[in-house]
Parts: sequence; structure tokens; C-alpha cells
Amino acid sequence: MRIDMVTIFPEMFAGPFGDSITKRAVDNGILDIHFTNFRDYAEDKHHHVDDTPFGGGAGMVIKPEPMYKAVRDVLAKTEEFAASRRVLIMDPSGPTFTQEKAKELAGYDQLVFICGHYEGFDARIYKLADEAISIGDFILTGGELPAMVITDAVSRMLPGVLGAPDSAPTDSFYEGLLEFPQYTRPREFEGMAVPEVLLSGNHAKIRQWRREQSLLVTKKYRPDLLEKADLTEKDRIFLNLQNDAEDE
Amino acid sequence: MRIDMVTIFPEMFAGPFGDSITKRAVDNGILDIHFTNFRDYAEDKHHHVDDTPFGGGAGMVIKPEPMYKAVRDVLAKTEEFAASRRVLIMDPSGPTFTQEKAKELAGYDQLVFICGHYEGFDARIYKLADEAISIGDFILTGGELPAMVITDAVSRMLPGVLGAPDSAPTDSFYEGLLEFPQYTRPREFEGMAVPEVLLSGNHAKIRQWRREQSLLVTKKYRPDLLEKADLTEKDRIFLNLQNDAEDE
Repeated sequence: MRIDMVTIFPEMFAGPFGDSITKRAVDNGILDIHFTNFRDYAEDKHHHVDDTPFGGGAGMVIKPEPMYKAVRDVLAKTEEFAASRRVLIMDPSGPTFTQEKAKELAGYDQLVFICGHYEGFDARIYKLADEAISIGDFILTGGELPAMVITDAVSRMLPGVLGAPDSAPTDSFYEGLLEFPQYTRPREFEGMAVPEVLLSGNHAKIRQWRREQSLLVTKKYRPDLLEKADLTEKDRIFLNLQNDAEDE
Repeated sequence: MRIDMVTIFPEMFAGPFGDSITKRAVDNGILDIHFTNFRDYAEDKHHHVDDTPFGGGAGMVIKPEPMYKAVRDVLAKTEEFAASRRVLIMDPSGPTFTQEKAKELAGYDQLVFICGHYEGFDARIYKLADEAISIGDFILTGGELPAMVITDAVSRMLPGVLGAPDSAPTDSFYEGLLEFPQYTRPREFEGMAVPEVLLSGNHAKIRQWRREQSLLVTKKYRPDLLEKADLTEKDRIFLNLQNDAEDE
């Protein structure tokens, strides 16, 4: 997959992309990440990329021309991906990013991220993008951190990126539930013991315990996820028993 | 505010924290960021911080001992903040981070971030934290990007960090609505013109147009936010007129 970051702060990405999954994916040739600084496309002497808002107000607004030129240049130079690419604009007003969206984006050959910084985009810039994405209901300084977050989540879904082929499926949200508690050595730490069942060697029992723990944790912290989760008949019976126990 | 990042990948933070708001806050002495590598607290020869999960399964689990030692060391060394600090564990199973939470966290004198990487934490590590926080329903490689996102959102809320004193209040989500469209020069770009009202110089009209645009954008993309937003009587009348127009 080819990734193009259109940003005036390409150096922000060095740390996060120098470590971890993303680096492994780049080293393995699975990800190919390019940076385009849209300041290079500003034609005035001082290379301004923003200007004051019409109608007044604090802050600056990202100008349309340099961004249009930068994004069009990226698209023209990567014409071979035209059949399978997606231009994303990082925007707190967009729909919220989810694991479902990560899976969907992992199916494209190229993702182009438009990252603003400090201020909002001129409204005409949105026409450059196929879709706007937000990573949540909070305000950040720029689109760079959201672009890193989305790249990390998407690259984990690409074939060959995660070491163990079965690492991803047990992660949280993969089946719409929160993850069950995990334990490693020591068996007892400061009076806190590992649950007996995990030491039993009985794999069917362990699987059942983990599923039940996932259901309990999800019920406790994110009941909204339970409503959307793909539950089995056995899951429903377990949850009903829990509800009955609470009612008593 | 003092920030302590407990992570085995401190170098990941260099890019994002070297630019933007966070850097400005550090330069102004408003933020003081420290890094503690919990691998330094692993006492075996190879400095292992993870181990296989009891009960089997793919992946590794972060061991309790090095993390306990690292976090306790941070807390002991920063005793002067004990009256106003919060220990946060970055965890996809935690409640989702919001702008409300950013405001709340901005009220503490110290935030300690526990960042895992690749795999889950041993369940006993959660007892070290005051609360778990997730930045959304998606799977990331580690807690470092979430810790950067939260730090960015929180630091914007600290007095003196944003240049213009009135920059923050017009941002998206500040009043529970999405932001109105912004425009800057040129007045016309590739056939797309700036709305006339923004060029009118009539500030009352501009304010009203922006409020109505915020309501319309929020209604269209995030109707869930409208239900929670603090609407005036005038807002409600405007939205009702919109509904009536749609019904016709």
C-alpha cells in the first residue's frame, strides 16, 4: 500500500513511523510512505499556506490554492494507483474512525491524507477529498496525529504486517467485544494471583472463561458495544444469568 | 503541568512533541515532559518486559514487576505533585476520550501515562492507574499515539498555550457543535465563491449565519451531538424551520 501524507509538518512523523508496526511494514515493503509539504506549493514570496477568515474571527484558515496544487500533484504522480485509492481529509467534523473503517481502508492500494494544522481548512478544500475522517470528539492541533493513528490501525490489517498470523483476531474490537484480562508470570504478584482456570491446562474451559470475561468487561464498561456485537446463543444465556444474579 | 510518559519507546514522541502546540507549551514552561523507560526496571539479564500469557494464546503480555517499579519510581520522585495528579493507562477497553475529559485532565498538576506496546497488560497492572482511557474503537500498536493525542488535546486547554486567547472557543466541539465552514482568500476559486454574507461586514448577520451553519452541519453529520448540545431557543426555532422545510 502506498501512503501519501500532505502536511506542512512531515518531520512530526519520524518518531511514530520510525518504530513499531509501521516501520516493520515499511521495511517489509508492505507500506510505502511519502510526504508532500504543501508549503512548497505556495507561490507567494513567504510561502504562506494560510490567511485570515472572511467574516472575521480568531485564527487562520488554510488557503485553497497550495493544497489543491499539492494534492493534484500527488495524484498525477501516482496515476498507477488511480483505480484503488482514497483521499482522506483529517477533520474533527467527519464521521468517527472505527476498526470497521480501518478494515475498509486496508482494501485500497493508496491512501492520501490531507493534514491541516492549527486552524481549519477553507471549505473549498473538502472537495479534494473522498471522505472526511475524525478520530474522536476532541480538539487537536492538527491532522498529523490522526493520520498517524489511522495509518497504524490500517497497517495492522494488511496481510503480512503482524508477526503471528493469529495476533490480530484476539485483539479488542475484532469481534466487537472488549478483550478478556490477560496474565503472565509471576503466578502471584503482591498478593494478586493468576486465576486458577488459566493454569488448568483445560483449553475448552480457558476459552469459555475468556469469552465470559470479555462479555462481562464489555457489559460493565461498554454496554453500547454489546448491542452491536455478534453474540452466540450461549453468550446470551450467560448474560441473562448475570442479569438474573444482579436482580436478586 | 508535569507529564510523565512511561513507555519502552520514548523516541516515538520526538517528532510530534518537537512541533506544534506541545513544543510551544514546553518552550513557555507550561508543560514539563519526562520519559521513563520501564525496560530499565526489568531485572533479568535481557531486560524482558513481556512474557507469554497464562492459558495460552498468540502474542505476549506486559509483565507486572517492571511496570510497578517504573511507575512507583516516577510517583516517588514527583511527590510534590501527589495532591493533584492522575495516573492514566492507555487501554482500548477504557472509556473513550472526549473534549470534556481533556478539560477535566487539564485541571491536574501532573499526568502519568502508562503506555503498553504490541500486546496487552497483565491485568494486575491496571491497579496502578487511576483510570483507563481509550481514544476510540480501533486497535493500535501501542499506547504511545493515544498518549500523544491526549497530551495535545489537554495542553490546548492549559492557560497561556494557545496564542490568541479566543482561539479555543470557536473550535469544533467547544460548544458541543461541529464548526461552521471557514473561507479565506481568494473570493472565487475555480468557480467556487465565498458566501456573500461573509463579505458583508455585518457582524450580527455573520454570527447568525455561522451559528446556523454549525447547526446544519451538526444535524447532517453528527445528529447525536445535537441531542447533547446546549441550544438556545433561537437555535431550536431554526432547526424546527429546517425540519418543516424538509417535510414539505
